[in-house]
Amino acid sequence: MGMTIVEKILAKHSGKEKVTPGENVWVDVDVLMTHDVTGPGTMAIFEEKFGKDAKVWDKEKIVLVPDHYIFTKDKHAMRNIEYVKDFAKKQELKYFYEPFTTNYKGVCHVALAQEGHTRPGEVLFGTDSHTGTAGAFGEFATGIGNTDGAYIMGTGKLWVKIPETMRFTFEGELPPYIMGKDIVLQVIGDIGFDGATYKCMQFDGEAIHSLSMEERMTICNMSIEAGGKCGIIEPDEITVEYVNERTNRPFEMLKSDEDANYSFTKVYDATKLEPVVAKPHSPGNKELAKNLSDVKLDRSYIGSCTGGKTADFVAAAKILKGRKVAIDTFIVPATTKVNESLDKIKFDGQSLREIFVEAGCKVGKPSCAACLGGPVDTFGRTHNTEVVISTTNRNFPGRMGSMDAPIYLASPYTAAASAVTGYITDPRKFI
Amino acid sequence: MGMTIVEKILAKHSGKEKVTPGENVWVDVDVLMTHDVTGPGTMAIFEEKFGKDAKVWDKEKIVLVPDHYIFTKDKHAMRNIEYVKDFAKKQELKYFYEPFTTNYKGVCHVALAQEGHTRPGEVLFGTDSHTGTAGAFGEFATGIGNTDGAYIMGTGKLWVKIPETMRFTFEGELPPYIMGKDIVLQVIGDIGFDGATYKCMQFDGEAIHSLSMEERMTICNMSIEAGGKCGIIEPDEITVEYVNERTNRPFEMLKSDEDANYSFTKVYDATKLEPVVAKPHSPGNKELAKNLSDVKLDRSYIGSCTGGKTADFVAAAKILKGRKVAIDTFIVPATTKVNESLDKIKFDGQSLREIFVEAGCKVGKPSCAACLGGPVDTFGRTHNTEVVISTTNRNFPGRMGSMDAPIYLASPYTAAASAVTGYITDPRKFI
Repeated sequence: MGMTIVEKILAKHSGKEKVTPGENVWVDVDVLMTHDVTGPGTMAIFEEKFGKDAKVWDKEKIVLVPDHYIFTKDKHAMRNIEYVKDFAKKQELKYFYEPFTTNYKGVCHVALAQEGHTRPGEVLFGTDSHTGTAGAFGEFATGIGNTDGAYIMGTGKLWVKIPETMRFTFEGELPPYIMGKDIVLQVIGDIGFDGATYKCMQFDGEAIHSLSMEERMTICNMSIEAGGKCGIIEPDEITVEYVNERTNRPFEMLKSDEDANYSFTKVYDATKLEPVVAKPHSPGNKELAKNLSDVKLDRSYIGSCTGGKTADFVAAAKILKGRKVAIDTFIVPATTKVNESLDKIKFDGQSLREIFVEAGCKVGKPSCAACLGGPVDTFGRTHNTEVVISTTNRNFPGRMGSMDAPIYLASPYTAAASAVTGYITDPRKFI
Repeated sequence: MGMTIVEKILAKHSGKEKVTPGENVWVDVDVLMTHDVTGPGTMAIFEEKFGKDAKVWDKEKIVLVPDHYIFTKDKHAMRNIEYVKDFAKKQELKYFYEPFTTNYKGVCHVALAQEGHTRPGEVLFGTDSHTGTAGAFGEFATGIGNTDGAYIMGTGKLWVKIPETMRFTFEGELPPYIMGKDIVLQVIGDIGFDGATYKCMQFDGEAIHSLSMEERMTICNMSIEAGGKCGIIEPDEITVEYVNERTNRPFEMLKSDEDANYSFTKVYDATKLEPVVAKPHSPGNKELAKNLSDVKLDRSYIGSCTGGKTADFVAAAKILKGRKVAIDTFIVPATTKVNESLDKIKFDGQSLREIFVEAGCKVGKPSCAACLGGPVDTFGRTHNTEVVISTTNRNFPGRMGSMDAPIYLASPYTAAASAVTGYITDPRKFI
């Protein structure tokens, strides 16, 4: 019996020839990521357990990316930023992407990839639930709590139970109106919000491997919304091109063995996929966009680690070009690099930013912004009973700020098409 | 009637609403590339026509990439390098990738892409026949003679006849043993070495858009071997990810209109493609690899702008891992970045370089090396009557150094499989 890619990565990082699902192993960590919300707690536990003057295990393997509550006057948020800044300085962390400087990057999961911290074959932990995003690069990446984070800070290791692997294969060509977001919402809807609890979700097949890295990131990002321990896509040439340019470190190309064991397999015909929306109040509450055309909206939100990448805005621009939005529409680039790409990429002489502004959208600064409610002055934060369509990852009550705001999750195509009409709209209307 | 992508680019660069094949226009040039072989001639004509003290039209738009005869003791070659070096200094060229310094890059067509000089929607001319490589990025790119190059140096413009466009569509999923090289050799074999004379060759369809950028470059690189004015692939998300990271300049995403006019169309079923070899002495002399198994070889050569990219070596390594070569086998990375990737990318703990060395290959320094014969001490240069399989682009008599050496062109998979057996070998034997 062979191993899946995740079993191979965890075997290699625990010094074993072979590991089996259910087995517990000590895993050597390649990268630990933390940010302004969970960072202070993690650092406080580290200092409490390892001592005030303890040094982190490896100052080049911790990546500190304040991103959640940056552009706000909230005092608690500002205090958090000062806290992690002091820690980064004291510990001489090599990778601290400091807010309000030219070294600021934006949302951690996208910044990690863009700055070269995601590499095939590695183990990445982050004190954030969407750390699984990096599975798109063929690595084991998962979110952990502050205590685990503090333990890694001190030792570089973590005790991990090897997850079973579920396999989702997408055969055939993706229709032009289907994005990574539709794929993952379809899967979560099919298996339920707890359908992959502590499982690795492996995505493969022709349709997956024809996707850009950003689109693959969207899929792995939301594996946690089905309870998945991680999402993963085997690295290919497209992965190599993305990673090779961004890192000087070696990386290992692994694939699942043909006789690997999967606890579940499902094969999709990609050509038959339709645009999907997750209704309130769960990412697993799946409905086809075309069946929700009577849902009147108050706002559309395109942003976050899940839906605020360059590929997401290219998609939105294809629909918004030459059209006007009928409702409040927010554009929030995930990172400073994505923000720059809004000016670089042009269609018929118009930059993405110009297309959005002309359509009547409001464009914000790179950060997590309204994806999770946070401080009341967070850009685009949902209030009262506004009905929202959003490219973000969670629609739990209160997630975007108001307990009474119903949130519909959708792809950037669907969010843009809905912005134009003011109702949930299948993007095939415009594509 | 709409326009093809190439017609749109040339219309935009000549200040016209619409252009029609056969029409002549003055085109504004975005980038002019030249190198150590054609550079001195181009520069001499420039100085003769525009004056000894004339300044080039834009010192930030000329990219000078010495690459052809670098690692040689040949005096003529060394003199050429000194010549272009003096010119670069005198003209204060921003982009001069100087040999024997850390700023050396390697083979021009791959370096142009890696260093961010290839951008969708632009016009690129180069005094080298394989400049069409950059069409992979959705731009108009073509090779020109020294006189045209000198004219551009002085004015930033060139008089261009709008080419007709031929369309080659590849539907369905590519089999795992088929590479970009097989695709383009198939096409050249089908239409002949002059089948696309002064035409633009547009490649599209699901199979093309699932390829990495390096694989797309292989296809456009060889469009000149069918006589094509240029090859082109419409930019997509994978293009954006590659380009966005490498340039700060804006770029324009264009597509052919649905009602564009093509002078020729051919639709391929990608699933049915088989590994192809071009027999001596023409890239159009097509035969299936499986029908050439009685051809005994003396050497295998994997390198050049066409077949010496990271993707080419990843492919070769998949076959050479754990095997030994039966004949002299040369590995020549196109650029310094490709060379670095040989150490970064690992399979089962072994880097690509280690895999090649253990298999018994000889690994050279990044340059054009033996792709075109050149100085007698060029690494891997063909001598006498050696029978060679090569991932390069031309097999004319004498191209690799000896008029009597028969050269078979093939993909890196086929070249690697053939290296193992010593006979031309269909890579399906090992994949």
